[in-house]
This record gives sequence, structure tokens and C-alpha cells, in this order.
Amino acid sequence: MARSRTQRILVTAVTPDGATRRPDDLIVEEPMTIQLDGTVVSTTMRTPGHDFELAAGYCHTEGLLGGSAVSGIRYCADGSAVDSAFNVVTVETGGRAPTPTPRLGATSSSCGWCGSEQLDEMLQRLDPLDPTDPIPLDVLGSMPAAVSGRQGLFGSTGAVHAAALFDRAGTVRLVREDVGRHNAVDKVVGAMLMAGDLPATGLGLFVSGRASVEMVQKAWAAGFGAVVAVSAPTALAVDAARRAGLVLAGFVRDDRFNLYAPDRFSDDEFGSG
Amino acid sequence: MARSRTQRILVTAVTPDGATRRPDDLIVEEPMTIQLDGTVVSTTMRTPGHDFELAAGYCHTEGLLGGSAVSGIRYCADGSAVDSAFNVVTVETGGRAPTPTPRLGATSSSCGWCGSEQLDEMLQRLDPLDPTDPIPLDVLGSMPAAVSGRQGLFGSTGAVHAAALFDRAGTVRLVREDVGRHNAVDKVVGAMLMAGDLPATGLGLFVSGRASVEMVQKAWAAGFGAVVAVSAPTALAVDAARRAGLVLAGFVRDDRFNLYAPDRFSDDEFGSG
Repeated sequence: MARSRTQRILVTAVTPDGATRRPDDLIVEEPMTIQLDGTVVSTTMRTPGHDFELAAGYCHTEGLLGGSAVSGIRYCADGSAVDSAFNVVTVETGGRAPTPTPRLGATSSSCGWCGSEQLDEMLQRLDPLDPTDPIPLDVLGSMPAAVSGRQGLFGSTGAVHAAALFDRAGTVRLVREDVGRHNAVDKVVGAMLMAGDLPATGLGLFVSGRASVEMVQKAWAAGFGAVVAVSAPTALAVDAARRAGLVLAGFVRDDRFNLYAPDRFSDDEFGSG
Repeated sequence: MARSRTQRILVTAVTPDGATRRPDDLIVEEPMTIQLDGTVVSTTMRTPGHDFELAAGYCHTEGLLGGSAVSGIRYCADGSAVDSAFNVVTVETGGRAPTPTPRLGATSSSCGWCGSEQLDEMLQRLDPLDPTDPIPLDVLGSMPAAVSGRQGLFGSTGAVHAAALFDRAGTVRLVREDVGRHNAVDKVVGAMLMAGDLPATGLGLFVSGRASVEMVQKAWAAGFGAVVAVSAPTALAVDAARRAGLVLAGFVRDDRFNLYAPDRFSDDEFGSG
């Protein structure tokens, strides 16, 4: 079912010259619950659309599938007229996926855990990436401009994040937008999963905002070779990318950006495309 | 314990003229688990600092205290040398707070819930705000400029959100920054809770990013009269603010902004300060 992703309302535009009423398009957010083989694993505020991709991508990037193939994805109800029936998506593996358990902090001591333990957990679960054949630097720097024309929801609402899949030739293959930045990444990864295109070896992931450690974890789990973030990464995100062998570029402004990972740089590795 | 909120690393600055190595300050994110009377209620990635405010504010804005007074706030360990001992904070009410239960979607049908049901749940829990004595429009429009000089972590890292408390005279009373925008709001509310300054009747909350429904819910729970967001709100956030009787301004650019709530506007209500 195609549900509206924007909503038009009347707002009051206030300027030094006075106030006027005018229509404004707002981004829609709705709660969506994701189930894996019938067990609730997440409820997220998301923009409707590409819901199956979001559900499949979330299960994959959070490591919940454990390598199991997805055998089906469905809404809670078939053909129901109520909106909420489209706010629960079940990903099915026929029970082959491990029983879901709370991830963050679940295995640590009663006094919590710290960032380095979080990275250790990722390293236990995810193999370091193969750094061969990196994406050329000029391609990394070109991504914000390449994607901006395809951020349709951002253009109309100004309140939505984008994630995009690109290749080493600089071609943008897929763009997804969502009110939640993690959701936009999960929708890209889910689309690739459903198309049989994972792991994303040698491909790049663009994100329109900052790069947190969770974004790097999701990119790593999907097998991307590089992440380009328009804004800055966090310290833990850089640490994770360096351990993963993931190229991390950020603060991209025109043709300038910072390369945060790898921590050692050689011109030989990043030739022009 | 004062823990560092930024971390300096060497990055590679890439320009059309070549690549150079230079130091860069990154924002720190660390997982923090919040317990209420010993039960885990949340684990969030946060920037260390004002941890007690974050924990108390979260419990208040998520409605977990049920009106009970906070009798104590403490780290998991006293004087321990390990960082992770400072990543669990327990808020204590002596068992007077209701037993925590999963909030989002917990009371709805097996087929999930939708945004309007989410608002209904808020209205059950929170009384509409008293709209008397609104903050003047020129004060709302002045907030981004008033707060920008006090966003120290943003200035050094570019990767952090701010929330601020302001009054109807336009005075910024408190600014908190965090890698998570909800955390910045919870830190402001927690500081007010610990100072005995809640509810925030007649006061305004500034947020440096967008306004999601969760931000409006937190402001509503704290009793703020107005929310000013630098960027756009979501459709559900506007709906929530209108039902709450909360003034919601967004897309603030210089002296221009949009007033999203209330949905009817009269000049009498918003005189100059």
C-alpha cells in the first residue's frame, strides 16, 4: 500500500513585516514495529514507504539474522483497512535465525559497558573488511552533490535524512530517505538484501548527516568498503571504522573533506577513478 | 568524575591540491544505561557529562516517575577506576515510581499502533498546557542567535546537538549539548528537575535540530510553553503540539520562522516582550 510520506498543513509564516498563513509540507513519521519470526525486535519512528526493506535491513545490520536467509516478509494483516496494520512488519527465516536477545550491554557486567567493549563485541561478530580496490578519493568527495538532486523528500520538507548506495565509478545506484537516519541506511541495506546484492563489497554508502558508531556498524555489517558522511563522525565511529578496515570520509564541503579512516594514508591506495 | 567529551585524533584533510595530516577534535559517544530503582529502562549513546541530569530527565520526560520524587541518583560503582562504572546511572525513588514497562506500543493490539493512537496515549498521561502568557514572537525568533555562541562542543566538533532553556525576556538560562538530540533535551529537563524548577510553565525550550514527536512529548511532559526548533518539525510533532497547547516554532532563519502550533493565530496572544 502506498501511504503518504508528506502531509500539507497551514502554518503561520512570521517575518519582521508581519504574519501570514500559508501551506507547508511536513514529513510523516509513524511508529513501525519489526518482528523477527514473530518476536518483536524493534519499534522505530519511521517515514512510511519501503517498509519491507527497512525491516529486512534492520535485521541484517543489527546481526539478528545470523547468516540465515530471509524466506518471507509480510505486514501483520493482509488487506486490512486500518493504518496500524501496516505498522508491524514480520521478517521470516522459518525459525533459522537465532532467538533474538537484547544486544546493547546484554553480555557485559552489571556495571555497564564502555565504547571499547562495544567495539570488541562488533569484532567478535564481524570480520574486518578487505581493503583492496578502494573507491577513489574524488568519487568520495563528489557524493553530496551527486545525491542532493535525488533527495526529493528533503527538498519538500527539509526534515529528512538520506542514505545512498554508490559505486567506484561515482554512480549513485539507490537513494532512500527517512525521518530517522538509521532507518534510511537500513532501507538501503534491505533493498540490497532483497535483491541478493549483499555483501556490498567495493561499494560505498553515503549518509546525509553525521556518522555515529551505529552507522559505521550498519555499514560494516553490510560489507561496504566506504562511508561518506556530510557532517562529522564521532570518536567511537572513527575507532570502529579503523578496526573494520572501512574507509570513512566526513565533513564533505565542495571538493574538500576529511579522511578519518584508515589512520594511515598512501596515495597508491586511492588513485583516481 | 569529569570525563573528556572530545577526543583529538590525526585525520587526513583532502583538498583538490592534495592531502595533508592534521589534528581534529571529535565528539565522544559512550553507551549509558539508565536504571530506575534498579530496573534497566534505557541504554543510550551519549556524550559523557551531566549524566545524572540525563538519567533524571529521561525518567521524567518518558513519564516513568509517575509523579514520584527522586530520592537519589548514583553511578553503579563508587570510586571505581574503570570507565564502564560511570556508564550506568540509577535513579531512585525508594520504589515509589511505578514498575517500568515497555512504553511504545505495549498497550495496543497485536497489529501495532499508529501515530494518532500514540497521541491518544500522551493525552491520557499528560494534561493540556495552560496557554496563558505566551512567549513573544520576537523572542522565539531570536533564540538560534542567542544560543549559538554557547554551543562550545559544536564549535569544536561540529557533531553535537544543543538544547537550551530560555525565558520570556529572551534570556538563555541553560544550555546542554550531546551527540543525541533527545539526550540534550533530557539533560536540560533533568537539571530543572534536580533544581526543583519543574514544571517549566511559561518557559521555552530551544533545540538545534528538527522537532520530532518525541521531542514535543518531552517538552510537554516537562511543562514548557514553547518549543523553538532550528529545522522543520514532523507532521506528528505538529499534531502533538496542537493537542498539547504547546507553541511550536520551526525553520528559524534570521528573523523569519514558521509557527506550526497553535493552529489558530491571533496578534493579541503574541505581543512584544
